Amino acid sequence: MSQLQRIVIAPSQIDSPHILLNADQQHYLSRVLRLRSGDSFIAMNGSGQSWLVELQLDRAKILAAVDPKSELPIFVTLLLALPKGNGFDDVIRQTTELGVGCIAPVISDRTLLNPSPNKLERWRRIAQEAAEQSERQIVPTILEPMPWVDRLSENSDDPRFICLARSNSPHLLDVLLEQRLPSITLAIGPEGGWTDSEIKHAIATNYQPISLGCRILRAVTAPIVALSLISGVYENAPKP
Amino acid sequence: MSQLQRIVIAPSQIDSPHILLNADQQHYLSRVLRLRSGDSFIAMNGSGQSWLVELQLDRAKILAAVDPKSELPIFVTLLLALPKGNGFDDVIRQTTELGVGCIAPVISDRTLLNPSPNKLERWRRIAQEAAEQSERQIVPTILEPMPWVDRLSENSDDPRFICLARSNSPHLLDVLLEQRLPSITLAIGPEGGWTDSEIKHAIATNYQPISLGCRILRAVTAPIVALSLISGVYENAPKP
Repeated sequence: MSQLQRIVIAPSQIDSPHILLNADQQHYLSRVLRLRSGDSFIAMNGSGQSWLVELQLDRAKILAAVDPKSELPIFVTLLLALPKGNGFDDVIRQTTELGVGCIAPVISDRTLLNPSPNKLERWRRIAQEAAEQSERQIVPTILEPMPWVDRLSENSDDPRFICLARSNSPHLLDVLLEQRLPSITLAIGPEGGWTDSEIKHAIATNYQPISLGCRILRAVTAPIVALSLISGVYENAPKP
Repeated sequence: MSQLQRIVIAPSQIDSPHILLNADQQHYLSRVLRLRSGDSFIAMNGSGQSWLVELQLDRAKILAAVDPKSELPIFVTLLLALPKGNGFDDVIRQTTELGVGCIAPVISDRTLLNPSPNKLERWRRIAQEAAEQSERQIVPTILEPMPWVDRLSENSDDPRFICLARSNSPHLLDVLLEQRLPSITLAIGPEGGWTDSEIKHAIATNYQPISLGCRILRAVTAPIVALSLISGVYENAPKP
């Protein structure tokens, strides 16, 4: 069953025991995926529920709920300074594969370009596709880009960490092995790193500095490293 | 000192206490990096030694040996099935950032295209650039692409692992936390995974199946995850 194709549907499309398919979805299922009436696929609502369904022309019949347990047992929010170029697409794709819950793009002092308005739409589409392909139950939320200082001023009960290069801060892996957390917020800087004032601001609002290791990682690599460590520890490592 | 620019030089360029610079390097230093005579940079021989040097027209004077300790204390060999498209460039760049020692591109049953001969040259250039940028001491070795079966027939004392999706194999993180290894070989398959016969072959030649977690990772993401876990454990985690 795990090899079945997946598509995300809106809650409003559910008309139990059927799911009504819109024109785009019908086209995708029949023309792109080449499914025929009677073929099965997985419909997911993007917020944790999935169903095994059977294609029937313009709708799909719900056969069973499925529970592939592919979600991380910790809710991860990434605050990511926007990198140069298109690197952010890959970051969204790969952190979605690795189980991120929410991505908040951040405009930092060293962010070169403000993203165009249609970027957000594009990022959300990438997150949805990556969630389908990696067989997740949840499509990560992608928030609107926001200046770092504004993002910092938001209240949150999450343990909050800011990743710093060239620092003697504790390593994320050590922090993760030390205590079980229900959720975590990690801020990762742009190429060239956070500015001193950005770091000061973060620490003043309860962000703890952490390290991702002793080599210099690019802004597009660091989020993947962080998620790899989180998913490794929370899904598999011996409990502390 | 860590913010200095780095370039890789050949051992034959060392004429102690100077390093003779070739025309490309002179151009790169003066035109691209905009260094002038008297400016400092780091010259590295790509196999573990680096020097703080001072630019003097067509050569550089060695001021001191440097030892930034940016290398992993475990030698990691990655056997990577070639993915579609240009994804392999990113894999080389990112695993180099994360400390890989050797990359062996593998032609698997599901590899779509044989790489063109100039690819190898390109990959080696990417590894060198990524080693410079991530402030490594060693430029990873990139081997010639080779069919999986031929690669398997090679002798090695390394503990060898093959990463499998949808398996109940032990997680790489657990394996890493269990015992300290001086070196490790990890084989990671193509989009769509290894074929059954490839897996059988590997197990018959002492590859142990391991998992990278319960989501489906793309072929370009899995190597980053593996290296993230290895560098996290070997550089920072509490010793078992």
